Amino acid sequence: MIDGELYMGWDPELTRDRAYARRMTRMYNQTTEMDDELRLKLLKELFGSTGEHLGMEPNIRFDYGYNIHVGEYFYANFDCTILDVCEVRIGNHCLLGPGVHIYTATHPLDPFERNKGPEYGKPVTIGDNVWIGGRSVINPGVTIGNNVVIGSGAVVTKNISDNMIVGGNPARVLKEIEIQ
Amino acid sequence: MIDGELYMGWDPELTRDRAYARRMTRMYNQTTEMDDELRLKLLKELFGSTGEHLGMEPNIRFDYGYNIHVGEYFYANFDCTILDVCEVRIGNHCLLGPGVHIYTATHPLDPFERNKGPEYGKPVTIGDNVWIGGRSVINPGVTIGNNVVIGSGAVVTKNISDNMIVGGNPARVLKEIEIQ
Amino acid sequence: MIDGELYMGWDPELTRDRAYARRMTRMYNQTTEMDDELRLKLLKELFGSTGEHLGMEPNIRFDYGYNIHVGEYFYANFDCTILDVCEVRIGNHCLLGPGVHIYTATHPLDPFERNKGPEYGKPVTIGDNVWIGGRSVINPGVTIGNNVVIGSGAVVTKNISDNMIVGGNPARVLKEIEIQ
Repeated sequence: MIDGELYMGWDPELTRDRAYARRMTRMYNQTTEMDDELRLKLLKELFGSTGEHLGMEPNIRFDYGYNIHVGEYFYANFDCTILDVCEVRIGNHCLLGPGVHIYTATHPLDPFERNKGPEYGKPVTIGDNVWIGGRSVINPGVTIGNNVVIGSGAVVTKNISDNMIVGGNPARVLKEIEIQ
Repeated sequence: MIDGELYMGWDPELTRDRAYARRMTRMYNQTTEMDDELRLKLLKELFGSTGEHLGMEPNIRFDYGYNIHVGEYFYANFDCTILDVCEVRIGNHCLLGPGVHIYTATHPLDPFERNKGPEYGKPVTIGDNVWIGGRSVINPGVTIGNNVVIGSGAVVTKNISDNMIVGGNPARVLKEIEIQ
Repeated sequence: MIDGELYMGWDPELTRDRAYARRMTRMYNQTTEMDDELRLKLLKELFGSTGEHLGMEPNIRFDYGYNIHVGEYFYANFDCTILDVCEVRIGNHCLLGPGVHIYTATHPLDPFERNKGPEYGKPVTIGDNVWIGGRSVINPGVTIGNNVVIGSGAVVTKNISDNMIVGGNPARVLKEIEIQ
């Protein structure tokens, strides 16, 4: 699955892993604003790897969790969804606004192939110091460089180089940030 | 209401029906990943008609439920919202990504008319083998053909013919799928 | 903070205020369709000011609540998010579709400045008789005139004059409404 080959979602091991992630994220989404330590513990258990400090505001939604790797000081505001059938690698000091969706899951375009049930995934890679504005969507296979700013509501369908500000649907480069 | 004429949302019968749908969807959203049978039962009770097999990941949101008709093997990922003041007809083998919104509810454009309270609806029709990417919005009155693929984050404002891949805001045809 | 100057989000008073808003919105999101009076009471306590009549369908998400001021007959459908680090002023007779996000929170574009932690805000002002379509995003600093209609899924990045219909990402004027 994580090699980007077609796979069957109803494989028993994957089904069990998804059920585990759903139980863990459900527990997370039932925590309160007083449960900082429990939240941190659950995220560290769920994710493939993390930094020391991270935070996500509920509700969180993942497919597996263990395919998500985040660096130091990762923060995601309310209601972010990450479909991690494939690896999602996020660098240090990344901020996600509310309602950001990151997808690695995809399906065949041919309806007859699609209806047979196979799915496949393409990894998403995000650099350091990236700020993803609220309600953005990051599509399967996309690589985003360092210091990138993604405008709210953008739909990112292609790779983005370091230091760019992008926005729109599909997202286009609006400006380059001059790094001091 | 379902004839597309102006109606008053505070009609006592409609108010009661909406309260019933809110209770049922609230129960659904409180189920867990172990409640497959209960979820299926609740969806079959809520919807106007369904196939044998269907699934939706919580949270689900509807206005009435009974105006929604889905075919065989309907599946919707996390957090889909369907405002069914009018009929929503979805064919067989349709997949909705996370956070898809389908609207039939609309309001007069004139502010003085709108403030008097009437609403109206326009039906949505979706063919067979349609894959609607995550975070897409389907607007009132839209008809989508068979085998259509809608890119993530698209806002669909016009009818779409069979076999098209569309994307963007507003959604435009990107490509035609060659059916083998 | 509300003057639009850089501030530190971990200030103890602001941290306490955010925790209060999270507790109150969590309580709100646990109410049911039978709790109309409790919902109204909680909204009136949370918001900076309101009219007599208002309603929001859960889940609601705010940063503070007290920076939000809404006029008479405010209504927001399911799952609206308002990041009110700065004032959000909404006039009379305004309707928000499901999943509308209004942001006042923003960060420095320079990654080194951003990583030091300061945030800042820009107020959002919305006139009377405005209908914001489902899934729209209103960006920090935007002023929207009276009688405006915002199409579903629009991303509003600039001010909008009275009586305009706008849509798209970024949102552009589609038409002017002739007021009778």
